[in-house]
Formats: sequence, structure tokens, C-alpha cells
Amino acid sequence: MNNDLILLGHGSGGRLSHQLCDHLIIPILSGTGQSGQNAAAILEPFPGKLAYTTDSFVVDPIFFPGGSIGSLAVHGTVNDLAMMGAQPRYLSVGLIIEEGFSRADLKTILLDMRRAADESGVTIVTGDTKVVPHGKADKIFITTSGIGVIEHSIPIHGANARPGDKIIINGTVGDHGIAVMADREGLKVATDIRSDATSLNCLVTEIIAEAGTDLHVLRDPTRGGVSTTIKEIARQSGVQITLYEASIPINHAVRGVCSILGLDPLFVANEGKLLAFVAPDAAERVLDRLRKHPLGSQAAIIGTVFAGEAGRVNMETIIGGQRAVEMLAGEQLPRIC
Amino acid sequence: MNNDLILLGHGSGGRLSHQLCDHLIIPILSGTGQSGQNAAAILEPFPGKLAYTTDSFVVDPIFFPGGSIGSLAVHGTVNDLAMMGAQPRYLSVGLIIEEGFSRADLKTILLDMRRAADESGVTIVTGDTKVVPHGKADKIFITTSGIGVIEHSIPIHGANARPGDKIIINGTVGDHGIAVMADREGLKVATDIRSDATSLNCLVTEIIAEAGTDLHVLRDPTRGGVSTTIKEIARQSGVQITLYEASIPINHAVRGVCSILGLDPLFVANEGKLLAFVAPDAAERVLDRLRKHPLGSQAAIIGTVFAGEAGRVNMETIIGGQRAVEMLAGEQLPRIC
Repeated sequence: MNNDLILLGHGSGGRLSHQLCDHLIIPILSGTGQSGQNAAAILEPFPGKLAYTTDSFVVDPIFFPGGSIGSLAVHGTVNDLAMMGAQPRYLSVGLIIEEGFSRADLKTILLDMRRAADESGVTIVTGDTKVVPHGKADKIFITTSGIGVIEHSIPIHGANARPGDKIIINGTVGDHGIAVMADREGLKVATDIRSDATSLNCLVTEIIAEAGTDLHVLRDPTRGGVSTTIKEIARQSGVQITLYEASIPINHAVRGVCSILGLDPLFVANEGKLLAFVAPDAAERVLDRLRKHPLGSQAAIIGTVFAGEAGRVNMETIIGGQRAVEMLAGEQLPRIC
Repeated sequence: MNNDLILLGHGSGGRLSHQLCDHLIIPILSGTGQSGQNAAAILEPFPGKLAYTTDSFVVDPIFFPGGSIGSLAVHGTVNDLAMMGAQPRYLSVGLIIEEGFSRADLKTILLDMRRAADESGVTIVTGDTKVVPHGKADKIFITTSGIGVIEHSIPIHGANARPGDKIIINGTVGDHGIAVMADREGLKVATDIRSDATSLNCLVTEIIAEAGTDLHVLRDPTRGGVSTTIKEIARQSGVQITLYEASIPINHAVRGVCSILGLDPLFVANEGKLLAFVAPDAAERVLDRLRKHPLGSQAAIIGTVFAGEAGRVNMETIIGGQRAVEMLAGEQLPRIC
């Protein structure tokens, strides 16, 4: 038996499953040294409302500049909770592994998950592992779910954008998608582009502290990018939005790759960016506070909400024109998360 | 564009993703008619401790006698919560779909999920859909997570088996695994075998009501079957267990298929069975109550817990001998759940 590879038996629920869980997965992820499996984790009562979310991760390649499918699976779910104004607390992890996958790579991914969880202040409390025959999955897929607690009563919601709101982003657009795509396609030109994937809950805490009820919407522009996310919020809130192209921060290298390949960076996925819709009086204060944070040094106001036509999004272009912004129509960059 | 198939663009996060979610997935699963996507669901505060679990489902075939990957994904997660003595409340759903998968099959699977959720008294509140290129996954994988509430203070736990406890099962062993395997392999002999997959939370409510603190362990013998589960509990609780072969209910057809193929039905997965470890004084009462329930008509006492040697499990065979029971060593029946 090859101890370096994951076998079908590791997903059997039998002896090999127990070995894999007790000697590799649980010690790394739980950090409690606790082994032995129960059907579910028991959590102490929560003081407030809960936020609950899930995401499946199928990113290709599984290791990319700035992260891996493991860290991404934690960051992504932590951010989904943070975007509801929740403090992320607990994660679950479902692993679907292709037979023959490297045990060493699995260990690296698990360590990435644990590090990302520790940095985000969340605990991985429950999980499951399945193994499918070679050729029936692509290396490894990870589905994380998460529970967070909401300790305030600010209604942060996609339908809560209000006329006058300023739209703030915490930094450059498109880094994650281009980093993954460039790595997958072997674009040497782009070796200095790194994924922005990170947990944003600490940044959300800052925004809530500064803006209070002047914070109306939080959303992370992942798949579909900034354009799709903004269009979605315009529809949900029944408002019109104008974006200012000149104000949207984009890394030089990302802009270059997008230009060569004919990609619109505003459709490219981000994994460490958030859009905050903030009442006009609070916008500058939030912007200042974000810029003092390591994850917000390039923060910018990139748009304004108007009553106007519900669901309409316009871009004021760099050359002073106007164009309509739509959702991503097809699949621009598959398997980016 | 072929409207009958799932395309990569349906996982892009863009327009096609929104159409799929808003017009197919969310209406069926949520049942609220609510569309529009938020990063996470908001849940009202819970009155007690929570149970939290996750499971990935990769069953092949995705439709089998007695269920589908959709109903199974709900039953499996509901049961994991029920085995902690929790009342299942909320589910999340992560779909990983292979490009080219049939939209009609997806709809059938979603309807199965919804029906199973309704029957189990749980609400599907949040989800995510990814699409991977053709050949990179096998049709569809589903990862469900679940949250339940624990409204009692009975310590139900795998480490809580006590000498003297009687081990009760609610019915026949091996039906799910053999039904799936027989269907996959096209064994015509076995056409009358159906999966036992169902939600067991209602049965757990009955057991708790009858046994109270005399209920020590609950576990559903899924992957690895009854043998692996019993061995696991013997280890966790540091006790010895004797099983009575003659008392273990097995359907005639399941026994026949196992006999022909050289399979041990006690290693075969169940998805509608539970093992309850109950103090001796309460065992007969629990048994009587189970037998009055549709899901427990063939309930039986199949074993006893002893102080003995920690982790040891013996089988008293039908012919009066003794043999050691071990965990499933390899992968007996892959992709059974």
C-alpha cells in the first residue's frame, strides 16, 4: 500500500478513514488534539442572531500565488459571514478527494486551512471526507460552511442601499482571478500578481465601529467581480448606481494582463475585497479609517447611489463618457474559486 | 445555447448563475419564493446549545431504488444532528455540478431535497453552486451542513456507553448499501431491495421521551456499517461489546446478495438506521416504543456493553461461537453515500 497517496478506502468510513481522520485531518484542523468521531459538534448557546453560509471551492490550480484551495475555502466562508456584519465563529469542512491525490498536498492544504482559520479567529469544529475513484473529481474540492454571531442591530443587507450612499472598496480589483488564471495558463508575464485572498472580518469590525447605522450594504465582489456585484445590489435595493472608472484601483500588472487578454477587470473575481455602501456623511471617515488598516491602504470611493432607475448601473468612463454596466454574461474565468 | 444542460457559465457568479439560482434552485429549495442573493442567511437566536455537522455526498448512481443523492444529502445531515440528540433546524447546500449535467435531473434532485427537508422539519436557508468542466467531476456532488438545537441536557455521546447498556437497532441492516451497489452494477436479482434512507429525528424524539437519561449513545451506522460503528463506540467509551448475530435483523434479499458476493452485511452502509445504547432497565420500554413506530417495526436488541477489554467487540455467532468484530479494513462498496 502506498502511504503517500489517498486511496478509496480512506473514504470508506472504516479503518483507513479513521486513520486519516485521527492522524492527519482532525489533529491539524481542530487543533485540540481531540480524535474520535461524533456525528456533529456541540456549540455553546449564542448571544444573538446567527449568520449561516456555505461555499464550495473547486479552484484550479489548487495552489496559486498568494494562497491555496485550503486558505481560500476558509477566507471565502469567513468573508460571507463578515458581509452580513457577523463575527465568524465556527466552520465545517467537507472534503471530496480524488483517489490517488497526494497525501503531502492534502497535508499542506489542511495546514493552510488551519492557519487561515487561526488568523480569522474561527474554529473548524466538524467535517467529512469522501474519496471518489481516479478521474471522477479533479484532485480536491472543499465545501466549507460557517456560523457567525451578529452582535449589533444594524440592518446590513443587499436591499438596503439608499440614494446618496457612497460606495467604498478597500483596494485593487481583479488580483485573485488574474493570479489564478495566469498561474493556470502559465503566463510568465504575470508572475508578480498575487491573489488578494484574505479574511475581511477585522476590516468589517472597523467599518461598523466607524459608520454604525450609516453602513447599509457590505458585499465581497467574488465570482462575477465588481460589476456583477454592483448590478446585483442595484437590483436588490431598487436603486441606480454610478461608478467612477478613474477611481477604481487596479494593479498595473492586472490591468496589463486584462488588456492583453481582452478581459474586463471589473468582471474578475476578488477574494480579499469588500464593497461598503455608506451614508454620505460617514463616507470620508470610513475611508480614512480603512486607509489606516493594512487591508485598506488603497481604499477608494468608487461610486454613488441614486434614486433613478431601479437596477441601472452606469460607468463614468475615464474619458468622460458613460456606459451601462451589466452582469457577467457567460463564464469569463472558470474555476477561479 | 442548450437550455437543457448546465453550462460552465451557470457557476460564473454572473447572469447565468443568477438565472439558475433565482429561477430553479432558490424557488425549489427555499420554498419562500424569495430570490436575490445574500452572502449568508440570518437565523433567529437559539434557545439552547447547537449541534453542527457537515457531510459530502458522492453516491453513484445519483438515482437509486428508494432515493437520490438529493434526498440522501438531506437525510444524512438530518441524521447526524439527530444522533447528537438535536432537533435539526437549518441546512446549507453546496452543489458541485459537472458541465453538461442535465437540468431536468438537477430539478429532480432539488425537488427530492425539498421533499426530504419538509418531511424532516428542516429549512434549507443558504447554498452555493459551482460548475466544473466536463470530466472534472462525476455528474453532481452535494455537501450539506446542518444546525440543530439541543433542548435537553442528556449527555448523548459516543464516549458514554456504559457496562450493562443494551444496544438497540431500529430495523434491518445493509439495505442502503446493497440497493445502491446492486443498481450501480445492474444486479437484476436484487430489484426488490430499496435504500432505507430516511430522516430519523422523529424516532430520536421517541427514544429520548422514553429513555431520558437512560439513553447514553446514539449513532447511525452509515459508511463502514454496524460493525465499524460499534467498534468505534467501544473504543471511544473504553468498553467491551458483545453482538448477537442471531438477533440482527437482515432482509432476506440483502442477505442473499451479500452471500453471493461475499460481503458482510454488517460492513454495509445504512442511511435509515440508528443504534441506541440504553441502560438495561429502559431497554425493553424503548424497544416496545420503537416497534410501534413505522421506522422501528423491526427494532431489536442486538448487543450488550461490558466493562471487559476497552475497544474489544465480540460477535456471538448463530452457531454459538465467538469471533472478533473489527472495523472495515478497506473500501468494500465505494461511493455508497
